[in-house]
Amino acid sequence: MFSNRCTVFLLNNARYMSTAKPTVGFIGLGNMGAHQAANLIKKGHNLMVFDLSKDNVNKLKEKGASVASSPAELAKNCDVIVTMLPASKHVKGVYCGENGILSTVKPGTLLLDSSTIDPETAREVSKIASEHKATMLDCPVSGGTGGAEAGTLTFMVGGSESDFNKAKPYLECMGKNIVHCGGVGTGQVAKVCNNLVLGISMVGVSEAMNLGVKLGMDPKKLAGIFNTSSARCWSSELYNPCPGVLENSPASRGYTGGFGSALMNKDLGLAVDSAKSIGEPLPLGNSAHQVYTLLVAKGEGNKDFSVVYDFLNKRSDN
Amino acid sequence: MFSNRCTVFLLNNARYMSTAKPTVGFIGLGNMGAHQAANLIKKGHNLMVFDLSKDNVNKLKEKGASVASSPAELAKNCDVIVTMLPASKHVKGVYCGENGILSTVKPGTLLLDSSTIDPETAREVSKIASEHKATMLDCPVSGGTGGAEAGTLTFMVGGSESDFNKAKPYLECMGKNIVHCGGVGTGQVAKVCNNLVLGISMVGVSEAMNLGVKLGMDPKKLAGIFNTSSARCWSSELYNPCPGVLENSPASRGYTGGFGSALMNKDLGLAVDSAKSIGEPLPLGNSAHQVYTLLVAKGEGNKDFSVVYDFLNKRSDN
Amino acid sequence: MFSNRCTVFLLNNARYMSTAKPTVGFIGLGNMGAHQAANLIKKGHNLMVFDLSKDNVNKLKEKGASVASSPAELAKNCDVIVTMLPASKHVKGVYCGENGILSTVKPGTLLLDSSTIDPETAREVSKIASEHKATMLDCPVSGGTGGAEAGTLTFMVGGSESDFNKAKPYLECMGKNIVHCGGVGTGQVAKVCNNLVLGISMVGVSEAMNLGVKLGMDPKKLAGIFNTSSARCWSSELYNPCPGVLENSPASRGYTGGFGSALMNKDLGLAVDSAKSIGEPLPLGNSAHQVYTLLVAKGEGNKDFSVVYDFLNKRSDN
Amino acid sequence: MFSNRCTVFLLNNARYMSTAKPTVGFIGLGNMGAHQAANLIKKGHNLMVFDLSKDNVNKLKEKGASVASSPAELAKNCDVIVTMLPASKHVKGVYCGENGILSTVKPGTLLLDSSTIDPETAREVSKIASEHKATMLDCPVSGGTGGAEAGTLTFMVGGSESDFNKAKPYLECMGKNIVHCGGVGTGQVAKVCNNLVLGISMVGVSEAMNLGVKLGMDPKKLAGIFNTSSARCWSSELYNPCPGVLENSPASRGYTGGFGSALMNKDLGLAVDSAKSIGEPLPLGNSAHQVYTLLVAKGEGNKDFSVVYDFLNKRSDN
Repeated sequence: MFSNRCTVFLLNNARYMSTAKPTVGFIGLGNMGAHQAANLIKKGHNLMVFDLSKDNVNKLKEKGASVASSPAELAKNCDVIVTMLPASKHVKGVYCGENGILSTVKPGTLLLDSSTIDPETAREVSKIASEHKATMLDCPVSGGTGGAEAGTLTFMVGGSESDFNKAKPYLECMGKNIVHCGGVGTGQVAKVCNNLVLGISMVGVSEAMNLGVKLGMDPKKLAGIFNTSSARCWSSELYNPCPGVLENSPASRGYTGGFGSALMNKDLGLAVDSAKSIGEPLPLGNSAHQVYTLLVAKGEGNKDFSVVYDFLNKRSDN
Repeated sequence: MFSNRCTVFLLNNARYMSTAKPTVGFIGLGNMGAHQAANLIKKGHNLMVFDLSKDNVNKLKEKGASVASSPAELAKNCDVIVTMLPASKHVKGVYCGENGILSTVKPGTLLLDSSTIDPETAREVSKIASEHKATMLDCPVSGGTGGAEAGTLTFMVGGSESDFNKAKPYLECMGKNIVHCGGVGTGQVAKVCNNLVLGISMVGVSEAMNLGVKLGMDPKKLAGIFNTSSARCWSSELYNPCPGVLENSPASRGYTGGFGSALMNKDLGLAVDSAKSIGEPLPLGNSAHQVYTLLVAKGEGNKDFSVVYDFLNKRSDN
Repeated sequence: MFSNRCTVFLLNNARYMSTAKPTVGFIGLGNMGAHQAANLIKKGHNLMVFDLSKDNVNKLKEKGASVASSPAELAKNCDVIVTMLPASKHVKGVYCGENGILSTVKPGTLLLDSSTIDPETAREVSKIASEHKATMLDCPVSGGTGGAEAGTLTFMVGGSESDFNKAKPYLECMGKNIVHCGGVGTGQVAKVCNNLVLGISMVGVSEAMNLGVKLGMDPKKLAGIFNTSSARCWSSELYNPCPGVLENSPASRGYTGGFGSALMNKDLGLAVDSAKSIGEPLPLGNSAHQVYTLLVAKGEGNKDFSVVYDFLNKRSDN
Repeated sequence: MFSNRCTVFLLNNARYMSTAKPTVGFIGLGNMGAHQAANLIKKGHNLMVFDLSKDNVNKLKEKGASVASSPAELAKNCDVIVTMLPASKHVKGVYCGENGILSTVKPGTLLLDSSTIDPETAREVSKIASEHKATMLDCPVSGGTGGAEAGTLTFMVGGSESDFNKAKPYLECMGKNIVHCGGVGTGQVAKVCNNLVLGISMVGVSEAMNLGVKLGMDPKKLAGIFNTSSARCWSSELYNPCPGVLENSPASRGYTGGFGSALMNKDLGLAVDSAKSIGEPLPLGNSAHQVYTLLVAKGEGNKDFSVVYDFLNKRSDN
């Protein structure tokens, strides 16, 4: 049935159009979500949106979206709903709260949550959705606001093979690389574990670059050695935290732009939570989380997460 | 062919050329040094060796090396001396101790220390050598016993440009990739910093692979995501610590072979020492060092350093 | 004598006095709760109990308690309810869930939660209770099962001064030391912070005792020095983790009895959570939590939390 | 009175008695040593001093000390020598270096090193001293400059029972509490282990006080609960790091005076080194060391070591 609808949709569309286009719902029109929603409209979808901020809503309204007064109202009118929310508690609220999606959701609705939250919550809410005969997949993204705007996000998707295939055409309106990670929750697992390694290696590369420089080594030479041997990693090669090593890195423009320390702190916090919930040790993950918590507490939350190099490098003489 | 190049070099270099080939000295004939010394013989050098172990000495004697009764006797007879020793105190002893190299060293002798030691000691001993009018360069290696045997080691060399050029032909007899890192000591700095990132990222990848697997994700799929995104690193891509992800990794053969946990513990200890000596913070380096210290204390020192995955993964029920 | 004091109190306090004694409810009859409930009966209270385990319920029934079929039924019949539950989610469930206390609670009911949970949840549930016109205080305890049986627990109470005074006579039936910590939630704050220091100092004393002993020092002499100088702390003086230092410590009887590592792991986890929720750094708290997580993963969760000394001290030769 | 006892001892002890009092040597006249040396003069000893700083030497000369031009010259003239030096390398230099004590030391000389250094160096130098037929004991102190001035230091002494008894009367001229810790090196072991626990518990108490205060608890109330329960420790009870909790703590006077963060960083560094040298894990010791290394790097090295509370508590908004 659903695949029929998809087929109809695909047949009639330059790629995504259909005679009676289904309305897609979108909740959470922040820095990421606003771009994702706009891209869904660009690809020809009728969009109904909801956000607590009137300003955010108006921007999408201008682009042709209709507006719902609550997640519940939106859910009454949509067969596919995409959400992009800050944290687990917002996901719980928007789906399971009063006037939430699940209070009115139609059987068969496809729910695509692109928020980054802990896998446990993702599984819990998905299970509740299934009790309402709706299908909820976790589809966290990587690629930042740039990727969201350009429609080149990577989606890490957790759900059954067939549900993944249903979700894919919608996700392809917003992203370029749609990866099926396994059953429900594994999208979040992949995202959390990826960013765990990323955060750890960024702090590690920062410590090593700082140590090497302080011991008298040229930073470009040191990075060059890393990148051709066993220290090679994304944080060193493509995002080196030492100013001047890479021309276009956030480090070379005062740690502006990029991926904020506060966001890395949040993602490492999810890893810490997930590990704690199943009793797994995470010694370096915890240390890295503490480093970012301190960075944020010291006012560096809005700077790119490679600012940890600067934090280690700088000396104060109180 | 390679030995030809060595010969050509010798012919063209007034300083080290002689009708009778100069004798090269080699001290420290352990797992690494024995192979390096053998490669120097293969490339046509007359070799004089010293080691505390008679067995080690005899193996090289059989390959044509002459034998010295002490570093001092060796230094009297050689214009170039290569050393490969376990730790800083052995380097201090062999160079500066009673009957040490510097007690008899000839002015102009080229001293190539391929041990991995702390940069401070490297600089200190090099300075003492220069007071004896000898030139000492730090040339630590990467590539393991395999690389030592095949003559494909990477040498990270600290010393002046011109001294580096003098050393290069000898190092090329034992290695493939000879990198000039900067002034005296920077070879050790590069080695220590590289292995600092390596140790941290290995523990980080192990934590993340273990967390992902315990949260229900397929390890190959998880590694695949890491390797195509921002978690990509040597430890994940070429040396994944989770059994079965890479066919030929130490993890897939019971953590045998490879680079022992005890050696990684030693190298992280050098990073910790170096950072401490100049008052630099090293939060993750210290955490990683603690993980390996614990691994060694629990009897895993001889297993490959990727065994940290197994340590985190395994459950005991006392 | 003590029961006299209870009686006197009841005579002088119009609000809680009655010719027919009011029924006290008790939910959570585990290792701690069963003793607390029994002590309320001993002090003359009519008790109504609920627990998911029939066995637990029957033991209290034999001592004279009446039995409720659900928290909701219990709440209909009681003016004062004490709860003793394993973790935050159970507290949420028992109070706010279907058939929970708050679904039927009578206005003016005094709710005394002696569970150890995170302060945020304590405040959240208390706020919901107040919307039902009931008063909920957090009253976590210290003193272990021994203190629960003997009625000598310490209660750390969060709530207004006047609510504290209402709660005190009931708590005095179960404990000896009833401390008013401040507003709602501060009982949990005090408990969490106390056990944070306790866990950190226990690991710290264990590291130092182990280091000293391995460096050749007599453990009793070392502990003696600690206890008369600036290393003095409860973990060293009254609960020394090194076997033989104190005759009656868990360490001297194979780390049996006492306070389990798994419970310390849970309490440190609460501190980690609380700090994370407000963005506060907790470097040693996190390290200590990781040590206990590893201990539990390695099968030592049921041993006394001073077993960390043994874990650091023991060598394995795999 | 005390000097009487000193005299009596000297009269009764053949080995150290003489009609003309033996000259005591003192090397290292810094903040601590100057006071110790002055107290030896006060108790009636003839003192010969050496220090690299002319100013330091002159102050003692004014008090009646004679002056040596080198440790070697001093050692020729003294039967008992006390040293108070900043770190291991200075101890090695003053004892074993050119013109060092051991180059001229008389057989039977009693060498009392009150520096805080690593136990390994203490044992090494003591062994070399014994090869020169001199007896060297490690006698590190606690009590700070206040205790040094008042002559109320605690000495932790490593050496044989009989050597301890020979040293005691001299140490009693400078301190009040003279503790025999065991064989050579154990004085340093005791000092290092004591300050390891102290540093860890200070950071732990600071984390917990900061967490509690940020979660809305009154700091005096929280400290009161700690001090009457299992969080009780010297750092909370006598040296609470939260301003206002104790009237006379460094915390209540802007973290001035007291024991500097840089010194705690040094002592934790000794613990880290000692543990590393014998392969013992030290997870919290390392974390605490990192905290103090960061504090010093951020310019807080001269403030009292309880300033860690302030560091955790303060927020910056860059």
